[in-house]
Amino acid sequence: MNNTIDQISVDNIRQICLEMIDKAKSGHPGMALGSAPLLHTLYTKVLNVSPKNPNWVNRDRFILSSGHASSLLYTILHLSKFNLSMQDLKDFRQLGSITPGHPENYITDGVDASTGPLGQGLAYAVGIALAEAYMHNMFPELIDHYTYTLCGDGDIQEGIFYEVLSLAGVLNLNKLIVFYDSNDIQLDGRVDKCYDMDIKKLVEATHWNYIKIEDGNDMDAILKATKKAKKSNKPTLIEVKTIIGYGCKMQGTNKVHGAPIPHEETLELREKLGGSAFVLPQDVYDYYKKNVYDRGNRAYNKWAKIPQNDLFKQFLKNEHKVDFSKIPTFDGSEPMATRNASGMVLKEISKQDPFFIGGAADIASSTKAIVEGGEFNKDNRGGRNILFGVRENAMGSIANAITMYGLKSFASTFFAFSDYMKPSLRLAAISHLPTLFIFSHDSIAVGEDGPTHQPVDQLSMCRSIPNTYVIRPCDANETRLAYEFAYNQTEIPSIIVLTRQSVPLVAPAKVDLNKGAYILSKEEKKLDGILIASGSEVKLAMDAKELLKEKGYDVRVVSMPCFKLFDQQSEEYKESILPKFVARKLAIEMGEANHYFKYVGTFGHVFLIDNFGVSGKASDVIKHFKFTAENIAEEFESLEDYKFLDK
Amino acid sequence: MNNTIDQISVDNIRQICLEMIDKAKSGHPGMALGSAPLLHTLYTKVLNVSPKNPNWVNRDRFILSSGHASSLLYTILHLSKFNLSMQDLKDFRQLGSITPGHPENYITDGVDASTGPLGQGLAYAVGIALAEAYMHNMFPELIDHYTYTLCGDGDIQEGIFYEVLSLAGVLNLNKLIVFYDSNDIQLDGRVDKCYDMDIKKLVEATHWNYIKIEDGNDMDAILKATKKAKKSNKPTLIEVKTIIGYGCKMQGTNKVHGAPIPHEETLELREKLGGSAFVLPQDVYDYYKKNVYDRGNRAYNKWAKIPQNDLFKQFLKNEHKVDFSKIPTFDGSEPMATRNASGMVLKEISKQDPFFIGGAADIASSTKAIVEGGEFNKDNRGGRNILFGVRENAMGSIANAITMYGLKSFASTFFAFSDYMKPSLRLAAISHLPTLFIFSHDSIAVGEDGPTHQPVDQLSMCRSIPNTYVIRPCDANETRLAYEFAYNQTEIPSIIVLTRQSVPLVAPAKVDLNKGAYILSKEEKKLDGILIASGSEVKLAMDAKELLKEKGYDVRVVSMPCFKLFDQQSEEYKESILPKFVARKLAIEMGEANHYFKYVGTFGHVFLIDNFGVSGKASDVIKHFKFTAENIAEEFESLEDYKFLDK
Repeated sequence: MNNTIDQISVDNIRQICLEMIDKAKSGHPGMALGSAPLLHTLYTKVLNVSPKNPNWVNRDRFILSSGHASSLLYTILHLSKFNLSMQDLKDFRQLGSITPGHPENYITDGVDASTGPLGQGLAYAVGIALAEAYMHNMFPELIDHYTYTLCGDGDIQEGIFYEVLSLAGVLNLNKLIVFYDSNDIQLDGRVDKCYDMDIKKLVEATHWNYIKIEDGNDMDAILKATKKAKKSNKPTLIEVKTIIGYGCKMQGTNKVHGAPIPHEETLELREKLGGSAFVLPQDVYDYYKKNVYDRGNRAYNKWAKIPQNDLFKQFLKNEHKVDFSKIPTFDGSEPMATRNASGMVLKEISKQDPFFIGGAADIASSTKAIVEGGEFNKDNRGGRNILFGVRENAMGSIANAITMYGLKSFASTFFAFSDYMKPSLRLAAISHLPTLFIFSHDSIAVGEDGPTHQPVDQLSMCRSIPNTYVIRPCDANETRLAYEFAYNQTEIPSIIVLTRQSVPLVAPAKVDLNKGAYILSKEEKKLDGILIASGSEVKLAMDAKELLKEKGYDVRVVSMPCFKLFDQQSEEYKESILPKFVARKLAIEMGEANHYFKYVGTFGHVFLIDNFGVSGKASDVIKHFKFTAENIAEEFESLEDYKFLDK
Repeated sequence: MNNTIDQISVDNIRQICLEMIDKAKSGHPGMALGSAPLLHTLYTKVLNVSPKNPNWVNRDRFILSSGHASSLLYTILHLSKFNLSMQDLKDFRQLGSITPGHPENYITDGVDASTGPLGQGLAYAVGIALAEAYMHNMFPELIDHYTYTLCGDGDIQEGIFYEVLSLAGVLNLNKLIVFYDSNDIQLDGRVDKCYDMDIKKLVEATHWNYIKIEDGNDMDAILKATKKAKKSNKPTLIEVKTIIGYGCKMQGTNKVHGAPIPHEETLELREKLGGSAFVLPQDVYDYYKKNVYDRGNRAYNKWAKIPQNDLFKQFLKNEHKVDFSKIPTFDGSEPMATRNASGMVLKEISKQDPFFIGGAADIASSTKAIVEGGEFNKDNRGGRNILFGVRENAMGSIANAITMYGLKSFASTFFAFSDYMKPSLRLAAISHLPTLFIFSHDSIAVGEDGPTHQPVDQLSMCRSIPNTYVIRPCDANETRLAYEFAYNQTEIPSIIVLTRQSVPLVAPAKVDLNKGAYILSKEEKKLDGILIASGSEVKLAMDAKELLKEKGYDVRVVSMPCFKLFDQQSEEYKESILPKFVARKLAIEMGEANHYFKYVGTFGHVFLIDNFGVSGKASDVIKHFKFTAENIAEEFESLEDYKFLDK
């Protein structure tokens, strides 16, 4: 294709990438240069996208898993007439620009996912392909598209790649096409020093289709391979052999992976190419206009004529209407584990919302995260329970992608294993995705399975993630309210933390859960102090209050299911719940719980566990750590009742 | 082998497992019953272990990756005359017993690793095999053993399995033998619903040897396969087809995975077998005495006669003597990133300690975690820099295993990607392993790479892990001291958190880093308030102090590199650094930082970032979040100076 418009486009795109990185004095030329022919071919000849309608639900998706090649994506989006100007390209990696260092779905039109942490984009692509399969089954004419992703050697080495590879295989997500930019070089040197996988064998072991492109500059080969992959009845991985930093003096070495090439070289390359810095030839613009913008428009307009029923319109509006007043409250005749209450509420939600789909990491029977609609699998695309297998990290990112698609998704496992999901929990929050994470077995009360299975540090880990609601309900009624709150979020993920063991009802059916903390039991006359807790420890606080009453103390009990929500309340509200000038505040939590010090102040105390759990009967373990009403009452009594002078 | 002593042993071992689980009313019969013939064969005919010398350094290692099959391991250890009595088996899963729900290396003799979180045991086995290869190269006669592990379908699905599989392949750890208990059933049902990998193809794709045993009850086949694997010049995976819960009515179903079988059935099975509950036939004891205990003793005694040089004796004593006085302090003529200071100290340590070995997840050139001795690879077993590739979770667990072996190990990546390592960070702490975790690029000051690469929540995540020191030095000198402290730990892991950007020297060469926090700059006459910080923010606090001085405030600056260490000090020391009755305390941290509220009290404040970062030049990003001396000074001024009355 030499000297064709395609080659001219690629040459110019490469140069713009170098100029963006040169101007920013920061960025990753390696893959941007190596994969330019691939992305050019995809956008101009394969992808159905409509820059005029960037959020078109039936567009083909393209996820740049190797987010560090962002300069390439931005340049192509600019040419395609997405909402990116040449000035935006010049502002690459600058504060406030719409061309940040790694692509962010919430910043830039045409960017389908926030990527950067390696491997995550692959999981997103699998999640999108899964969502497409579900929606295609429901609306065969309206939803019918492909999902593409580009990854590199780093992505391929991450465990999450294997997790989603094997899952996409068993689910046979055949409309998924993964391009693997295989350039034999990674940050610290040659790939084969640390990874020498036979990729063909690997992907075929899990029933994928494998295609190899020997020369990543061969755009005919790219197009041919892609067409073949689209026809495959299996998911496809296309290995594209490229040269890292193609065209630079240091091409083929790790020197061009993640740092600008010399400024002089950028100038020299511009001189060789002709034209001026940050100027793209009109021919290239015209070519993109015709082959991306206009082609996309036509595809969109054709699609827009397909009749849409009410259900689809509801989906488009992203309106997931669940009438929570129809979900029964709990009457408390029997103590109930909040995981069981959660299971009941989830079932009810799924009865009302056909766009509610998710699953668990091989412990749905324990976490009770099971919804209506049977299993989603290769023979039942209408199923709504995804059997994620023991793949926590993949599960989280796939649920994020399903949420990104406009469905409501949930992911569930034991709370201790949320550790494996930290990358996906974080990415949900960064990407503004209201995924529901449902974790059961929330404390040392797990009992016999011992320290590895007893979460101690996980509440703090989750509470530390910005833009995330961590809700730990104290009983079945708070659980129901937690879902009412979390389900209705549109931009913020929620982490719902549930007990394994039964807990009695302590909260009325309607409480101010939305305010994060509220007075569950008011003092009678004078406020001698406050007990604060969430989850199963709320009942303990209530029992301790009774004991303290016998000893003459008049205390308040505050239920605090969500710290972040409480932090968002007015100063007045906060003061009404936890007055500053009450010295004796005791928070109780069977975990690390240092976040509570924010609320108990200088003279209060947090009764917590600053160690890992132990194996034993739950009741013995709880006693071992002294979480008894008697001891809590004593801890309270040992607090000194300082009085404060106002300033 | 029917009616042979082997079969009698296996029958009885299975029954004891059932009785342990029955008595505890808790446990996992599934794999314990399925894999009993395998473990029996291994211990009586293959493993070189010496129950009399349970910590013999040249013993074969056996890691039960599927830790939930602990009843089986304990029963075999008891028979082998490790320090477990029949009473201990009766106390299975009870508080304070040495037979906890999952195996814990720090509780039970003969248990080589704490396992439970799926996949981690596989990583441990790879780490042990790697340590053996290193030590065998150094001491070919004294160190020469195999590493075995048993995993199940759950382990195999975790991403970390793939990470360590591919790493062991490229490193060709040929003395590693993985048994895969393949029983087609997992917790939520049939394996092939969520995983249908061609295991043979998978492991061969990464240059392992694959052997299949069609019947897991065929002990001849097990022995034959194991012998073959030992001769292989590659690592070997042996897939053993077993029946989950073999011998129970519900065998072959997920009902026997993780809950006791009916009490009556346990009694019936006992009746069929004959004998009494919790009694093992003397023949079986005799057989184990001869084939494990005595055989192991002979092997140990033979080994003990091999001459040991001083270096090996030093290793045996677990004495890693590094004279830190020989590692130069920094004079501060030039500002220096703490990651660079760290790199210099690491090199110096490695010059003195030949047992110091570790690596980075493909960013050694960025984190500067590079030591003497070249690369460890299949052709250079004497190398000390492990190229982990982009496999963070595997890296952490492998470093833990190397530490467990008695070497000193470190693992390094960008701080944002510590997320991927949460499971291994936690396991280091649970298992009392003083691994060094070295994370650079520690804040929003990462700059252009944007929110995914800018840690905000990671400091809180790490500080929440019990039994772990998180040290964030403020400059090159504190960095050096951080290593002096962390290197000398014997039971507690350390997480050292380093800047990407240059920071000037602010601390003298000798400060009380060991106390967690100290007064870096004292007030002059009266104590108007305190600024508290760690890492790069300490310099900011010092600058703010100067501005406040101009405004007439006399403030103290406290450098607080390690919260946990400070918490461990006496009340007097804590009061001397952060007096309770000083209202105006301002902590400064470019992250979530809510843990700081513990130290600033009711009327203090924490200036932090309650959001994700943004992409931009580091200096712009820092300004965007208002981390300037001017703003810090203003924040301080806005604090009200409450006075307290004593109680």
